[in-house]
Formats: sequence, structure tokens, C-alpha cells
Amino acid sequence: MPTVSVIYFSGSGHTTKLAEAVQKGAASVAGVKTNLIAINGDDIAKGRYSNEAVFAQLDASDAIIFGTPTYMGGPSAQFKAFADATGGRWFGQQWRSKIASGFSVSSSPAGDKFSTLQYLHTLAMQHSMIWVGLGEMPMQPNGVNRLGSFAGATAQAGQESPDVAPNTADKLTGEVLGKRVAEAALRWNK
Amino acid sequence: MPTVSVIYFSGSGHTTKLAEAVQKGAASVAGVKTNLIAINGDDIAKGRYSNEAVFAQLDASDAIIFGTPTYMGGPSAQFKAFADATGGRWFGQQWRSKIASGFSVSSSPAGDKFSTLQYLHTLAMQHSMIWVGLGEMPMQPNGVNRLGSFAGATAQAGQESPDVAPNTADKLTGEVLGKRVAEAALRWNK
Amino acid sequence: MPTVSVIYFSGSGHTTKLAEAVQKGAASVAGVKTNLIAINGDDIAKGRYSNEAVFAQLDASDAIIFGTPTYMGGPSAQFKAFADATGGRWFGQQWRSKIASGFSVSSSPAGDKFSTLQYLHTLAMQHSMIWVGLGEMPMQPNGVNRLGSFAGATAQAGQESPDVAPNTADKLTGEVLGKRVAEAALRWNK
Amino acid sequence: MPTVSVIYFSGSGHTTKLAEAVQKGAASVAGVKTNLIAINGDDIAKGRYSNEAVFAQLDASDAIIFGTPTYMGGPSAQFKAFADATGGRWFGQQWRSKIASGFSVSSSPAGDKFSTLQYLHTLAMQHSMIWVGLGEMPMQPNGVNRLGSFAGATAQAGQESPDVAPNTADKLTGEVLGKRVAEAALRWNK
Repeated sequence: MPTVSVIYFSGSGHTTKLAEAVQKGAASVAGVKTNLIAINGDDIAKGRYSNEAVFAQLDASDAIIFGTPTYMGGPSAQFKAFADATGGRWFGQQWRSKIASGFSVSSSPAGDKFSTLQYLHTLAMQHSMIWVGLGEMPMQPNGVNRLGSFAGATAQAGQESPDVAPNTADKLTGEVLGKRVAEAALRWNK
Repeated sequence: MPTVSVIYFSGSGHTTKLAEAVQKGAASVAGVKTNLIAINGDDIAKGRYSNEAVFAQLDASDAIIFGTPTYMGGPSAQFKAFADATGGRWFGQQWRSKIASGFSVSSSPAGDKFSTLQYLHTLAMQHSMIWVGLGEMPMQPNGVNRLGSFAGATAQAGQESPDVAPNTADKLTGEVLGKRVAEAALRWNK
Repeated sequence: MPTVSVIYFSGSGHTTKLAEAVQKGAASVAGVKTNLIAINGDDIAKGRYSNEAVFAQLDASDAIIFGTPTYMGGPSAQFKAFADATGGRWFGQQWRSKIASGFSVSSSPAGDKFSTLQYLHTLAMQHSMIWVGLGEMPMQPNGVNRLGSFAGATAQAGQESPDVAPNTADKLTGEVLGKRVAEAALRWNK
Repeated sequence: MPTVSVIYFSGSGHTTKLAEAVQKGAASVAGVKTNLIAINGDDIAKGRYSNEAVFAQLDASDAIIFGTPTYMGGPSAQFKAFADATGGRWFGQQWRSKIASGFSVSSSPAGDKFSTLQYLHTLAMQHSMIWVGLGEMPMQPNGVNRLGSFAGATAQAGQESPDVAPNTADKLTGEVLGKRVAEAALRWNK
């Protein structure tokens, strides 16, 4: 049974909500196991992330979905600390041909989230992973992909409580991404 | 007196409206001359653009603002035909240290316009130009930068008439960009 | 039997050589059919590309590998004219979940080819395609990935004859990309 | 007298060498003051950077040049921790219209350093800074810009000692960048 892991950092809880939606979408696909893994700031010392239990989960995954807020035009430093810590896996190309995807949250509609998705794709390419994007037309009647992103899922959240932001449309967009990645993991590992 | 030229392609008239707003903003700065130059499809043969009168105007400019719709995730082919035709100026670095900026229009809030602004910046860097962005915080009360772009001005327009899209906020964003570039051209050439 | 199509523009013949290498690599995989399709400048009028026979081939393909020189920091205008002409397929999402990849050539080692690969990925994401990169560590003893690209294959060629540039290492890199994409097309369509 | 600050992170000493070259180039311009500031991992707790003395130096600068190795396809986490910590300055737009530029080091010729330069530009744009790139044609006889980058300076260094990598050509490229930024700071603040 393919395993889809969602690994993310959240500073104020908004990205957690989107991550949960992505996992929910993945878990809705029969025959797929999911993990939801938060990057914990306590695992970062002097800018370096370390947590072998997390890496063991990712090593055992068939698909990895990366998530982070967009801070100052790119992935959060905490996510980047995790990404840098994947260097050992990169050197051995241990994640080669796993499925990858990504998502990001920032306070404005565009808000340079494209930059963060580009980075997540660049990371995945260094790992020789296979990138699966959102797979949805923009601005659908039910709100899916209302912001117009394609390489992954994006959501908007500013100073509001995580109870209300990301909104329903953005969380649905996250679910759709999770479902698509899980279906891809099944098809790829048939 | 510094000259600011706005050179743009527009397929259905929406980018023309944003270009006019950018020029209006530039022209509002005392002591600056402006040009508004449309890229004409008739000047493109087999994918190559040619119009020496346009190049003469740009050669004589102190600042050049590039504009194009985002088509399929990047600058329109017509704009790219113009960009490729700047290769001669690149080879001689004739536009070195001129001021540059850019703007783009697409149908959804994000809609990969960041990709187009990145390209316009990359083009300017090959020409050793100096890049000036929007210079405004996102989602201001008057609508300036409502979409959350920083490297240039972005606007939203789909199937609506160019009479109504881009909307007032996006055109105001364009004006602000034009004004900022004109002020930069004055300061840079003092 | 999965079909892998390589569609590319070449201005001076160097990208043709890399395209041929990519096709050779794809054709080396048993059980895969390949097409090598050049974008012809004669099919572009006023910046718009049109060739329904080419589109029929692509519609019938399971994987599409995009190739273009890097001109002025991005894909050539001729390739972009083709990309813009895929808008109809985008609107109907007819290429959804096909495999995609890409390659580019420019005169210096880096030479902003990353920008072009990013664009090709962005195009593929708008089409909801699945992106497969090079899948190789940089600077291998046999010259594979000597320049250090990951999202696709890159090669270096300037004013030299296409008989000698791209060099053997870069063409081998192209072959490796073609082989990887063909294997991915087989696995994805099993 | 304009002040040009070079702020960088270096993991193994190679980026330090490039940063020193950039500072040397800036300091060669009469009438300019320079700072060379290393980002210290000890100033990062749980992924967050804090050092008010460094920020005071940057606040008092007219130009800021950002430098970082490219780790896993983007800026190092340590640099990103610094970048995230600039959020307060962003909120007040305190660095508005300062000059900005950047440089990066990785082990292969291309090596996704373009991605890092793009990020540094994106960061600068959020701060409404003015971006100055390298301003040099690629592959010059004296080795300047041998790798073919335009938005900033790039250098190559792998497992070699920082005594020999980056090489002379790449350090000269760094000097050229520093000189160009210092001259721009003088011109901009005349």
C-alpha cells in the first residue's frame, strides 16, 4: 500500500490547516496510507534540522508533499532547515523517483507563493523525484484554485485566526491536491 | 530630461489599459518625457521581431518598462519575439545601466504572473539594467497592490471588456509603478 | 505502446543535436514509440503558431519533452509561439496527466538555462502534466550532467558548428533524459 | 559617504572567500564605506535569527549585498533565517529604495544558483529595494562571469579547500560585482 507523507512547517497555525486538508484529500483515496508530519522548531539548532524518526517515515514513503508558509518571498527558514537536512538523502539519491508535490500559504492573493512552489519543485528535482501539481483549472465555481496556482496548492491567510483562514475554498483546493497525489502514487506504484 | 518608455504587447486590449496607466503615472512626474510603444504583431515574421524605429526610441530612453500578458505561464510569444530581437543591443551592452521594470496581466489573482515578472527581470539583468519594482505594501486600502506582487505591477483581466478590466485598483497600481520608475530615472540621472 | 514525443525549436542546429540525443535515449527503451518534431518558423504568423498535424501527434502522445535554446534568458520566441498555441488544449485540459520534461541549450555553462527549464515546468503545470527531471547527480565521471542541472537536460553551445557542440557529454546527458522519460511513460501507463 | 554592506552565510568557508572579494571590489571605489558581516549560526534559535547590532549596520547602509551558498537548490537555511528576520524592516518598509544585489556558490557550474539569485531578488523586491546585477558579458578572457550569470555573481566550489575554490576568475567576478554596486550606490545617492 503506497504511503503519502505530508511534511510541513507552520508558524501560526494556518499552514497546519492546509496541511490537514491535503492529508484529508490523500486519505480519501482507498488503498493509500498517510502521514502528517510537522517540522518542529525544537529540532533545529543553529539553522540545522535533525530528526531521524521523521526521516525514517519519509524514507518509507512513496510520495512526499512539502508545505510551508511563504515568508519574505520564499519557504520559511524552518522548512529550509529541513530541506538542507535532506542533503544526505540527496547524496545517495535515496528519494529518487518518489512522487513529490507542494503547497504554500501567504497573506495576499499572489504574495510570491509562486516563488515558494518553484523552490519546492527545485528541491524535488535535486532529489530526482516526480512532480505532480494541482491539476485543476483556476477559479472554479466551488472555489477550487481560486487564486490561480498550478504547480501546487496555495492559500491565503493573514492575521485572522486559523479557524477561519485559510477559507473553505482554499482548504478544498488542498484536499484536491492531496487526492491527486495519492492517486498518482497508486498509479505510479501499480 | 530623462525619458521613460513603456513597451508592451496586448492581445485583447487589457494590457494596453495597464500600459496606459503606467505611462500616466510616469508622465505625472515633472521633468520626465514618456513614450508608450505597442509591439505590433505585423512586425513579427517567423517568430522574429523587427522595427528599428522602436529600437531607436528605446536606445534613447533612460528607463524601459516591459509589459505583457501572461500566456501559458510566461510572457506572450509576441513580447518574447521583441525580447529576442534585443540580442543585438545585448551583444553591445547598449542598454547597460538603464532603469528597467515590468508589469503583467492574467485572468486569475496569481495566475503565474510572478513567472512573467521573473522573466522580465531576467531579461533586464542580461542587459545589465537596474531593476526597480513596485515599492508598495500589499493590499492597501485604496486597492494598490491588491494581488500582492512586488517585482512589478500585476493586474487581473479575463473575458471582460477592457473597459472594466483591469479594474480601478489595478490601474492605480500601474500608475504607482510608472511614477516610481520615473522618479528613479530622475534620481539615477541627476 | 506509450509514445514519447520530443518537440523543439532550434535556431542554429545545436538544439536539434540535443533533441536527437533525447529521442535516441527514449528510443533505446523497449516498448516505446518516439516522435521527433521540429517547430518550424514558417508555421508562425504574427507571433502565433499553427500546425494541426503537430498537435495531433502531441495529443496522441503519452509523454512530451519540450526543447528550446535559451534566448535572452528564456525560451525562444518560436517555442513560446508554440506554447501559446497550446492554449486550446489547456482550456480543455486535454494533456492532463501526460508525462512532461524539457531541455535547453545556451552558450555559457549556466547562462540562465535554469530560467528556461523553470518556464517549461510552469507550462507543463498549467497543462496538469507530470514532470520528470534528469534524475542524475551532477558532474559524473562520464560527463553526464556536467553543468549541474536537475529539472531537465542542459547543454552548452555557442558559435561552434553543431557538429561539435553540444559536446559528447551534453548529448549523453540528453540521452539519459530521454531514457528516463520513456521509462517513466512505461511505468505510468502500465 | 554611502555605505555598502555585504551580509552572507558561509558553511565551509567558500562563500566567505567570495564575500571578501565582493567587499574588496566595493572598497576599491573611492568615497564608499564597506561592512563585511557574517551570519552566525549561534544567532539562530529554532530557525529564527536575531542580532540587533547587525540590523543596525544594515539600517545605516545605502546598499546591501546578500550572499549565501546554494544548498538543496536555494539559499541556505541560515541565510533564510536572517531573511525571515527582516520581516520587521519589511513591515515598516525601512529598507525602501536602498540598493541590493547578491551572490551564491555551489559545487557545479550551474547547480541551481540561478534559483538562489532569484530568491535574493525576490527578497529585495519585497523590501522595495533597487536591484543591481553583475553587469558583465559571460565568459570574458580574464575569467569574469565564466559561468554565465547575470542577476548577481556566482562561483563554483565543492570539496576543495577555500584556499583554492572559488578560483581566481570567480573571485574576480565577485570583485566586479562589489565595484558595480558601490558605484551604483554613489550614483544613486549623489
